[in-house]
Amino acid sequence: MVQEKGMAVAERIYSIMENGDGRAGVAFQISITVLIILNILFVIIETEPSIHTLYGAHMEAFATVSLIIFAGEYILRLSLYRHKMGSRRFALIRFAVSPMMIVDLIVILPLLLPFFGVDTRLIRILRLLRLFSVFKLARMSDAMSEFAIVLRSRASDFALAFCIFFIVLILASSFMYYIERDAQPDVFYSIPASMWWGIVTLTTIGYGDTVPVTPIGKAIGAGVAILGIAVYAVPTGIIATSFNEYRRNKKGDRCPHCGKNIGFR
Amino acid sequence: MVQEKGMAVAERIYSIMENGDGRAGVAFQISITVLIILNILFVIIETEPSIHTLYGAHMEAFATVSLIIFAGEYILRLSLYRHKMGSRRFALIRFAVSPMMIVDLIVILPLLLPFFGVDTRLIRILRLLRLFSVFKLARMSDAMSEFAIVLRSRASDFALAFCIFFIVLILASSFMYYIERDAQPDVFYSIPASMWWGIVTLTTIGYGDTVPVTPIGKAIGAGVAILGIAVYAVPTGIIATSFNEYRRNKKGDRCPHCGKNIGFR
Amino acid sequence: MVQEKGMAVAERIYSIMENGDGRAGVAFQISITVLIILNILFVIIETEPSIHTLYGAHMEAFATVSLIIFAGEYILRLSLYRHKMGSRRFALIRFAVSPMMIVDLIVILPLLLPFFGVDTRLIRILRLLRLFSVFKLARMSDAMSEFAIVLRSRASDFALAFCIFFIVLILASSFMYYIERDAQPDVFYSIPASMWWGIVTLTTIGYGDTVPVTPIGKAIGAGVAILGIAVYAVPTGIIATSFNEYRRNKKGDRCPHCGKNIGFR
Amino acid sequence: MVQEKGMAVAERIYSIMENGDGRAGVAFQISITVLIILNILFVIIETEPSIHTLYGAHMEAFATVSLIIFAGEYILRLSLYRHKMGSRRFALIRFAVSPMMIVDLIVILPLLLPFFGVDTRLIRILRLLRLFSVFKLARMSDAMSEFAIVLRSRASDFALAFCIFFIVLILASSFMYYIERDAQPDVFYSIPASMWWGIVTLTTIGYGDTVPVTPIGKAIGAGVAILGIAVYAVPTGIIATSFNEYRRNKKGDRCPHCGKNIGFR
Repeated sequence: MVQEKGMAVAERIYSIMENGDGRAGVAFQISITVLIILNILFVIIETEPSIHTLYGAHMEAFATVSLIIFAGEYILRLSLYRHKMGSRRFALIRFAVSPMMIVDLIVILPLLLPFFGVDTRLIRILRLLRLFSVFKLARMSDAMSEFAIVLRSRASDFALAFCIFFIVLILASSFMYYIERDAQPDVFYSIPASMWWGIVTLTTIGYGDTVPVTPIGKAIGAGVAILGIAVYAVPTGIIATSFNEYRRNKKGDRCPHCGKNIGFR
Repeated sequence: MVQEKGMAVAERIYSIMENGDGRAGVAFQISITVLIILNILFVIIETEPSIHTLYGAHMEAFATVSLIIFAGEYILRLSLYRHKMGSRRFALIRFAVSPMMIVDLIVILPLLLPFFGVDTRLIRILRLLRLFSVFKLARMSDAMSEFAIVLRSRASDFALAFCIFFIVLILASSFMYYIERDAQPDVFYSIPASMWWGIVTLTTIGYGDTVPVTPIGKAIGAGVAILGIAVYAVPTGIIATSFNEYRRNKKGDRCPHCGKNIGFR
Repeated sequence: MVQEKGMAVAERIYSIMENGDGRAGVAFQISITVLIILNILFVIIETEPSIHTLYGAHMEAFATVSLIIFAGEYILRLSLYRHKMGSRRFALIRFAVSPMMIVDLIVILPLLLPFFGVDTRLIRILRLLRLFSVFKLARMSDAMSEFAIVLRSRASDFALAFCIFFIVLILASSFMYYIERDAQPDVFYSIPASMWWGIVTLTTIGYGDTVPVTPIGKAIGAGVAILGIAVYAVPTGIIATSFNEYRRNKKGDRCPHCGKNIGFR
Repeated sequence: MVQEKGMAVAERIYSIMENGDGRAGVAFQISITVLIILNILFVIIETEPSIHTLYGAHMEAFATVSLIIFAGEYILRLSLYRHKMGSRRFALIRFAVSPMMIVDLIVILPLLLPFFGVDTRLIRILRLLRLFSVFKLARMSDAMSEFAIVLRSRASDFALAFCIFFIVLILASSFMYYIERDAQPDVFYSIPASMWWGIVTLTTIGYGDTVPVTPIGKAIGAGVAILGIAVYAVPTGIIATSFNEYRRNKKGDRCPHCGKNIGFR
């Protein structure tokens, strides 16, 4: 009977944490969300030297406390693996390697590493891992997954658009390298270096740090620039069509008055 | 009966000012529009030193006269609050805090402040407030509100697109900061500084004032540049779909079986 | 009878020139098109110093001959005004001020001006007018007018999008001027100067010649950059919808099998 | 009978190479794909000086072996021309000049040229031809051709959009040349030089290497920048519409009255 009561408590904790049921669930979700946003904010502003000097120690303490809370949350979630995975074999391991649990683990990693004696330089970079806590928010968002469905339904179209982009990039960058390397040997010194120019041009960013100077180079650059328009037009066209289709299908294809199917509109 | 006549006059003034009825209404709306456009034009060109030297005093006088007219308009509108709000409680206060009335108040603020003895430097900046008179034009535009309806119907989609943009921005800028800060300590000196690079890159502006120079930095920058395409493609796709839906809805979509209007699909 | 014959000849010349009827018509249109393209090409490449030295005199001669041909074409077209305008009053004047005839006149203007003793510096610039001959091609293109119809059907939407763009531009540039002028007095020295930054940023060109350097300036600049996305998304969405509607309407809204109206799809 | 057996073998080889039938076919296609990708990768990274010093000789050897394999593939394909072209006249020549076979020939060209005694500098550039092997992949892709159909169905729209782009480019660049050449004689020294600015601006790349400095130049530049928005909006709108139509057509559109397929609308 004690075990039964334990099960009931576990059930309740699970419904609070996973589904955000009841007042406790809402309070829990809001608290975690606020904690995540504060952590991300502090990772960003503590790099500002003037702020680091003044509040560095406080922020450090806040980070440690947060990670301990996240670690507690991780252990609690892990211990409730049966509610998610049922009694399948390797249920615990399967649950531990699910994307959301791995994100949770990555975030609390900096807490574990000092025990293994990692050098301080690495730890400094490991602080960045706290930024991954932003993905923890995905657990609470339905809209995100809906969005992902729309984009995934056209995955093959995007893959093709990406392949075409890559082929254009490689050809453009290689030609530019052979044409410009004599005029600017310290800018276009290799094809990978030339690909930096290619990406900056095809995406229309145009920093201006690598620019063709020879007449032939400029002529090819002009052609690449015009092709760059397609780089934007094609994915935009695909996305616009996907959204169009998705919303139509969602609204249903039946007349609300007579109930008959009115076809794909 | 005098009061009744007063009411009739107030009614007439209200219909002229709010709805632009009759010749007087059209004349009033055109006058106010011209006054607003001239004010904005003068705020802009009086900052040009050569023009300021020649016509500065005239423009100053024109600005003061305009603000007095706007102040008169504001008081008149305020006094006619009953026609807009009816006889609800706190009708005057409710009317005074409506967006359009606040805009009207902000515009005439520079007229009031000398009485409170504000220092001249602040007044110089307060001149900018005259630019807000551009929002006064919104009162006369139907198209604007129609436009706003289309965009608002997809507010949650835009919010999601904005969140994704922000997450990408934070992660990209943070990684770039850790990678580039040793090579360019005076450019990527903090994550907020690095976020300037992130925004300039993701929006494909690419000023070129902050650019990665290390090979790893360029590789990450290339990835961010390609992600930047989505920053344009997703909102464009959403807007294109919204316009499509809105215009269909307006034209009316009918069921081909029973002929009834099947509304906004 | 002689007059009748003259009329028949005029009729024939008109059908050749305006409608491109028969072999003569096709030959005439191709000749004029080639002449226009060659003229534009020569205006462009004769500015290249090395080419000007070698072929400058030949190109000059070609330009003069072309202009004389264009002048002959202009006079011929003008003399056939009755076929276009009928016998309405002021038919000749009405015809002379039609857009296409004005373009024709502008192109041949450099031929007339020496008679009035214009100074040589102006003539140099007048050469540019030959570039306007590109608009003469519009006479031969049906697709262009179809395209114009699609865009014009949404003229009010575009006007609104343009107004919003302008309001954002003015507000952003004015704020940037007040914030950056102390830090960069020779770049942001007036609001019109600051508007150059505004346009270069909102259109995502980002030359990098005018860039905010203060933290507040960068924060506002970041906001403007994100707003700049809408500058692209809104017109693109409008155009995509217009094309969609236009093509649907063109294809007809009737079932090809049973002939019934299948509504606006 | 020997000939018959030979025919059967040829048939089998053909079905392996062209259609990728059976295990052998899949293995053949995967091998060729891997070989192509490795070749492209090596062309790119062998230009990196540090890698060239270490692995240059190995990569050279790999390139020669690859080209010999590609040459063998080319000869084999060529010898099986009857299976593709039937017994029409000039079947071999017709097959040899088909786009895919020309691509195959271009790729192996560097192998043939030493026999004709081409100087080493040209051979260095001929290495680039190996990059064309990327087009060999097109043989294996169905999606690519589907994509091409969608875009080709709107070829005339794209041609028109391109013409308008070109007309705007020529007019903008020519005016900018006449306005800026006195202020910046070494940047805007000719119209072709000015067209570099025009393309970089209209495509919103904005390197910042050529920028107007005079007030009139900036005013015209601002106008061109705003026109540049259309450069993106129009093709994007066209593509979005094409995809929309294509996908509807694929799913099949049926008349709601008689239920028959009403085809591509």
